[in-house]
Amino acid sequence: MAHKTVCVFSGGMDSTTLLYHLLAEGDEVLAISFNYGQRQGKELEYAARTCEKLGVSHRITDISNINGLLQGNALTSGNIEVPEGHYQDESMRLTVVPNRNMIMMSIAGGYAISQGYDRLAIAVHTGDHAIYPDCRPEFVTSFEKTIQAGNYDAISVYAPFISWTKTRIVQLGQKLGIDYERETWSCYRGEEDPCGKCGTCVERAEALAASKK
Amino acid sequence: MAHKTVCVFSGGMDSTTLLYHLLAEGDEVLAISFNYGQRQGKELEYAARTCEKLGVSHRITDISNINGLLQGNALTSGNIEVPEGHYQDESMRLTVVPNRNMIMMSIAGGYAISQGYDRLAIAVHTGDHAIYPDCRPEFVTSFEKTIQAGNYDAISVYAPFISWTKTRIVQLGQKLGIDYERETWSCYRGEEDPCGKCGTCVERAEALAASKK
Repeated sequence: MAHKTVCVFSGGMDSTTLLYHLLAEGDEVLAISFNYGQRQGKELEYAARTCEKLGVSHRITDISNINGLLQGNALTSGNIEVPEGHYQDESMRLTVVPNRNMIMMSIAGGYAISQGYDRLAIAVHTGDHAIYPDCRPEFVTSFEKTIQAGNYDAISVYAPFISWTKTRIVQLGQKLGIDYERETWSCYRGEEDPCGKCGTCVERAEALAASKK
Repeated sequence: MAHKTVCVFSGGMDSTTLLYHLLAEGDEVLAISFNYGQRQGKELEYAARTCEKLGVSHRITDISNINGLLQGNALTSGNIEVPEGHYQDESMRLTVVPNRNMIMMSIAGGYAISQGYDRLAIAVHTGDHAIYPDCRPEFVTSFEKTIQAGNYDAISVYAPFISWTKTRIVQLGQKLGIDYERETWSCYRGEEDPCGKCGTCVERAEALAASKK
């Protein structure tokens, strides 16, 4: 049975694949993106363009007022350098924004409930688990229980990629017709061109190379 | 042992009592209030004044951008009338903002973690349970598990009034020297004077009357 699904959609590779996947499954979809004062504001432009192309209703919600509250990490603080290297590296902990996923998922979940939708979809995957505790299965399961306990209308949380590698996600996306180079943006630094050196650039290049094997 | 506690503080009777209680217990306290586009913006003025009086650092975070996402209730929609009557009444369900507590607690929890604080305090009580599922013990317990699963730095959730009546809260507050008439604001309608008829006005009057017995 098709669902009515709110998709947390950043405009990066993973959530773009998720959006295509939901549509291919026949879901009615609302996409929601967040501006939380991140450096990579560019991904929001890509998100908007993809939703327009796919005819999906898209809300960009500005929660950058909470930026000042969540200090001390490289994604929202202008004065901390974005580290170079691999997600598995210890330095990558600088890119952890405290409780970020829980905040975005709570708002997106409230949106789903107020629209009478029945589930919330997120694109977390195994590559995220190493460094981001709020992308792990224990967190997602516990989040679902909490939002069900807290509301009259129950929604489920759909995280179909949670045990997938990024390469597998990219392979699915390629089957679904996604042109990652043109349709998605990943770099954590918000410059004209991707830096090629931050965790997400490294991961992107690896996944694209592996998907061709 | 004293804690470092972030207190979710609306400026109403319950959270004002909680703030006084935390200070009496010797906690280091940061107070956080939310502007979510509620009608009763006046409570934020009371919140600011109380924090100034008590020398507590206070952040008011504007999340009114999410207002448009959480439609269909009387507290954030200008075109829905605030119902009159008692919290226990079915009509009071119109005052339920989907997932509101989870959103505010997620942001306040992220703030606590980024400040190196060890707990988050909320003023939910038994009178809230009847109508707001996100004020019930099951929700609070599940929320605590979720925020602990989602972050490197564990915080606890402190809800000391969760099994208390509002009358008991008011009796504690009076011992702590709170002048509720002057220091707190409750009415859901944001007019010059309290309306005396909405759920929170009725509850306030009942608690003040009962505390004198």
